[in-house]
Amino acid sequence: MLDPMRDVTVSLGARSYSILVGPNLLSQLGRRCAQLNLGQRCAIITDTNVAKRYAPAVEKSLRAAGFEPVRVVVPAGETAKSLETVRSCYDTLAAHRLERQSFVVALGGGVVGDLAGFVAATYLRGLPFVQVPTTLLAQVDSSVGGKVGVNLKAGKNLVGAFHQPRLVLCDLKTLGTLPPREFRAGLAEVIKYGIIYDDDLFARLERDLHKLIKRDTKTLEDIVSRCCEIKAEVVAQDETEGGLRAILNFGHTIGHALEAISRYGKFLHGEAISIGQVAAAELSAALTGLPQLQVERISDLFRRASLPTSVDLNRREMKQLFAAMRLDKKVSAGEIQFVLAKRIGNVVWGQRVPDELIRFTLEPSLSTLS
Amino acid sequence: MLDPMRDVTVSLGARSYSILVGPNLLSQLGRRCAQLNLGQRCAIITDTNVAKRYAPAVEKSLRAAGFEPVRVVVPAGETAKSLETVRSCYDTLAAHRLERQSFVVALGGGVVGDLAGFVAATYLRGLPFVQVPTTLLAQVDSSVGGKVGVNLKAGKNLVGAFHQPRLVLCDLKTLGTLPPREFRAGLAEVIKYGIIYDDDLFARLERDLHKLIKRDTKTLEDIVSRCCEIKAEVVAQDETEGGLRAILNFGHTIGHALEAISRYGKFLHGEAISIGQVAAAELSAALTGLPQLQVERISDLFRRASLPTSVDLNRREMKQLFAAMRLDKKVSAGEIQFVLAKRIGNVVWGQRVPDELIRFTLEPSLSTLS
Repeated sequence: MLDPMRDVTVSLGARSYSILVGPNLLSQLGRRCAQLNLGQRCAIITDTNVAKRYAPAVEKSLRAAGFEPVRVVVPAGETAKSLETVRSCYDTLAAHRLERQSFVVALGGGVVGDLAGFVAATYLRGLPFVQVPTTLLAQVDSSVGGKVGVNLKAGKNLVGAFHQPRLVLCDLKTLGTLPPREFRAGLAEVIKYGIIYDDDLFARLERDLHKLIKRDTKTLEDIVSRCCEIKAEVVAQDETEGGLRAILNFGHTIGHALEAISRYGKFLHGEAISIGQVAAAELSAALTGLPQLQVERISDLFRRASLPTSVDLNRREMKQLFAAMRLDKKVSAGEIQFVLAKRIGNVVWGQRVPDELIRFTLEPSLSTLS
Repeated sequence: MLDPMRDVTVSLGARSYSILVGPNLLSQLGRRCAQLNLGQRCAIITDTNVAKRYAPAVEKSLRAAGFEPVRVVVPAGETAKSLETVRSCYDTLAAHRLERQSFVVALGGGVVGDLAGFVAATYLRGLPFVQVPTTLLAQVDSSVGGKVGVNLKAGKNLVGAFHQPRLVLCDLKTLGTLPPREFRAGLAEVIKYGIIYDDDLFARLERDLHKLIKRDTKTLEDIVSRCCEIKAEVVAQDETEGGLRAILNFGHTIGHALEAISRYGKFLHGEAISIGQVAAAELSAALTGLPQLQVERISDLFRRASLPTSVDLNRREMKQLFAAMRLDKKVSAGEIQFVLAKRIGNVVWGQRVPDELIRFTLEPSLSTLS
């Protein structure tokens, strides 16, 4: 008998696709791909850590369904999300004669998904691809919605494309082996969905955080599939971020800049956006009327998830942070655009925030407001 | 009074755009862009040769319309169509703080258009872009239809995207300064439209080739706009090359491979596809019933345009040629797919051709059929 499974649909007309969420799904990958009218050859793009653990099972499942997988292993970590790695993937795809009907399987966390998705979006002007996210962050966020890309020295995700996967397969068992720090980083995106869209989800997280941290399968299945539902609803309404989709960037303007100025070494993405979300909550209290009590519920929940909620910046770092924020993709006519909350579950986007208020929120000692 | 001008529409729903064809259009660029709801900042990507001649006029026109152009100059020649040049363009765009509403102007020939278009397709997940083609080849072919990309060592255009421009502005005066070899190379694509789609156009080319070679403005306007019309009709029916669009690749399978094995140094694209089209015509006589008389009209017309119609290959080069053809984007399940003619003006795509017949057509001395 098959394990139970949730099937969430991302509705985008002819480009609609399923997000499957459940335990022990890796072994179903080949069978699921066989339903998608794909070519025989495929490239599994994965990283050194994930390859050891999961590539054999994935290859076995694909081979059993008649596919011919090639394994492409990139270094683990954010630094692999670079144009150099993209080029080395292209060269491997060319060496193995991948064709337009061939497909790419992204097996790993957010870095692998974004990188492999960009390779798929641009090799031969676009190959189909399948996301097999193995981290909490990738399952609830980066594998869904078609945003793919790599970093430049000047900033995170400055290069990329919108390229929807044909399938997202979230095997909850892969979360069992995730190092605690990685798992907690994923919780930062989970909590985000509560803040931006669903106060019931936020309340459940307050109640069941301990079960989630213990990686209870039933809780994971509920929470991961709910996050995917929210993302699917947002993406279906605004695929290329003309408006609404911007809410998914709550906490990300400051978060991305923190990652950039620490050269993607100090903070995991989830840690950076944890700091960014707490800062955004404080800015929201000042500008969009988020009640102080809710600011505290927000920062408490991040703290209970063992995520950082503040950062120490000296004058030079603060200057770098602002320079990095001005390179954010959401900048319009030179103005940084923030997502701010009116209350938990309800946010607004495209908000202008005075620089001085950002400075004060992050590091009162460097501010003239203090 | 304004010079006369043709306006050809590429019909792609919300992504439809105009191709303007006429003399002295460069000075209208700013005014035309002002109608497109674009941001203020823009990057003019151009090459060392074209920059000297036309960048000042283009910048003046954009500034007069209120835009803030930044000039990005890349080396002239096919070698600039590389991931290295793409990266250096990204870095310049980041340094000048281009935003999502900013746009890219591709000012130059096919190399610049393909490169700048790929940069536009992928920077910040996609910026609007405007094509200002200054070669015959770019005006009749590469600037229209949204195919953008760069080369890998393994093959031409292996990396790319479909990204439609917002406007194509073909100033026929820029063709006046084109070196004769470049101009003739463009004629190879012009002749192609006659072969694949329009026997009247082919007959007119036979009749008026001398006027075209003298770059008579009226003849250029007729011919360039007719080629753009044909391309627009094909692209509107099959934007991402699911079927029909493949006909535009007549002569390109062998042509691209010739370019690849000579490392893009020996042949201009138009020269390589001239050889490729004559070979394809001969294959067509053998396989799809193209009358021998029409094969001769085809090779005569290329010859009268001073384009090469054959190539000397030794055994090693022939082997490299086949390896390069197998990397062609049109390969399906390992089979090279050819576009072949039934008669002038009527072609079929997805045709399988035995290797031995290709070898015999290109170099009878190396073939067992000889």
